[in-house]
Amino acid sequence: METLLLDPTDVDDNAEMAEVILAVEEAFAAYEAENVRMPAKSYVELPEHGGDFRSMPAYMDAGEWDGAGIKWVNVHPGNPDDHDLPTVIGTMIYSDPATGFPLSLLDGTTLTRKRTGAAAAVATDHLAVADAASLGIVGAGVQSYTQLEAISTVRGIEEVIVADTREAAVEAFIETFGDAFDVRGGSIAEAASCDVLSTVTPVEDPIVSADDVGDHTHVNAMGADAPGKNELADDVLTAAKLVIDDYEQCTHSGEINVPWSEGILGDQDIYAELGEIVAGKRPGRTAEDGVTVFDSTGLAIQDVAAAHAVYERATANDSGTAFELVDTQVR
Amino acid sequence: METLLLDPTDVDDNAEMAEVILAVEEAFAAYEAENVRMPAKSYVELPEHGGDFRSMPAYMDAGEWDGAGIKWVNVHPGNPDDHDLPTVIGTMIYSDPATGFPLSLLDGTTLTRKRTGAAAAVATDHLAVADAASLGIVGAGVQSYTQLEAISTVRGIEEVIVADTREAAVEAFIETFGDAFDVRGGSIAEAASCDVLSTVTPVEDPIVSADDVGDHTHVNAMGADAPGKNELADDVLTAAKLVIDDYEQCTHSGEINVPWSEGILGDQDIYAELGEIVAGKRPGRTAEDGVTVFDSTGLAIQDVAAAHAVYERATANDSGTAFELVDTQVR
Repeated sequence: METLLLDPTDVDDNAEMAEVILAVEEAFAAYEAENVRMPAKSYVELPEHGGDFRSMPAYMDAGEWDGAGIKWVNVHPGNPDDHDLPTVIGTMIYSDPATGFPLSLLDGTTLTRKRTGAAAAVATDHLAVADAASLGIVGAGVQSYTQLEAISTVRGIEEVIVADTREAAVEAFIETFGDAFDVRGGSIAEAASCDVLSTVTPVEDPIVSADDVGDHTHVNAMGADAPGKNELADDVLTAAKLVIDDYEQCTHSGEINVPWSEGILGDQDIYAELGEIVAGKRPGRTAEDGVTVFDSTGLAIQDVAAAHAVYERATANDSGTAFELVDTQVR
Repeated sequence: METLLLDPTDVDDNAEMAEVILAVEEAFAAYEAENVRMPAKSYVELPEHGGDFRSMPAYMDAGEWDGAGIKWVNVHPGNPDDHDLPTVIGTMIYSDPATGFPLSLLDGTTLTRKRTGAAAAVATDHLAVADAASLGIVGAGVQSYTQLEAISTVRGIEEVIVADTREAAVEAFIETFGDAFDVRGGSIAEAASCDVLSTVTPVEDPIVSADDVGDHTHVNAMGADAPGKNELADDVLTAAKLVIDDYEQCTHSGEINVPWSEGILGDQDIYAELGEIVAGKRPGRTAEDGVTVFDSTGLAIQDVAAAHAVYERATANDSGTAFELVDTQVR
């Protein structure tokens, strides 16, 4: 019995975005139905190396299938300059919950980008206007690619405006998607006035204000990932219909954590967790809604769901490298 | 930059026991010096599948080297009968703490056996009589092999007595080690009267009593791994010089957990954590000591230490399979 190794190319090739989005949507529904087990992320701080590790174990039961696994991922902001390596490197073990067997070892970095895009797509599907045709993206880094890839799966996106001060990053983005979409660089205000906006930056302080955002824009706030960091000004959040992925994570380190800690936002300002909307317990966008915001922090069950989709597709496609990691004879 | 895949044979070939023991001893010393970061094991319970997963992340700094990693391991007691698979299957990710890069993916099952043997050897080195020549082992399962392999590295073991009701298991053990040692099957009392005793069974209730154990026997109690389980009768533990690997784990689910929960053992009965002895803060065996007991529950830092030793040896030997798991170009 072999374990399937899936490298970055394998993950990219087998992450059929519609399948990943479906699996991630199932993860949010399972979360709402309490059909998941997801211990809190645990951190291994590495101050002597200017970084940390996070471990993200989870199990989810989608009814038709269940899956388990763990992502082990670091954040070392000095890596690009000091070691010619990415800041974030993830490794995912995807396991069979019936036996514990490690079905697959996957590049967790590519997987994270796919599942993060998929989460934005699930939120967009429930919260953006039905005829959304324009997408603004603030931040043209690696996460921006899967935002477009995923969101264009759930809405008929034609026009894309990318805002980033790094011209080369904007050009690379246009180069990649110019044939499929009407893509151009633009200001933050231009991006924010689109039907859908995704913010995928590492900024510490807000860069999008209420004046920038369109009347009915749905905003996917993807970038904030630590206490003290946020991308959207308070006036965007206080006026919006606010949807989060997870109460604990969002209030601690998500987009809302700064105004939350200052008492500007409270429980009464949160409309729903995304799982409640996916499960049909609360409506998504209604005719009365203006700006909507999805605060995404990223859940371990999203990784398990995405790994499920990629593993199943890779198996069907005979992709990847089989490896005998386990001696099944020894008891 | 590639990740080194180490399968069961690779781990076995590159686990030079003297090197693994040294690394595990360094782990205990680092633990005592508070040069480790080791979040509590987190559990993902799977009652619908009759099992669970445990995630064990850790970082340790031994001074000459530091290392980080995580072991993801399940316990599914029904696996052998229901799925023709081992009860326990582990996968280890060994990472560079300076960058987060996954240096190696290892078969964690073989690794666990090696580091568990190594922990017994470290304890034996500090607690057994210097001229210990006989080793008793109760339980002839997979863990018994690395007990002999490791303990014979630190003491001049000549005679080995193995106690197990499963005759085939005893015969297989003798077959493996008969050329190198004077090995024979025997009763629990015969095994327990040796200079060193290791208990490596899955029993729930005690099988070794004070009458069985020799006057100066050092006992490695390796088997207990859950609340309610123990291998040694209370009278062995109350009379012994008692050394543990970790206070929280041992009192919760180690050999001492049952008498501890009943109030038969308390803080005053614990002589030391093994790290204190390794670090020289408390003496190991002295001329006055009779029976000594080491309660081993297994720490995540032992896995990191063993992975370090195996990875370094495998790299030097050009062993294993290099695999491009990470795309180092994408930032």
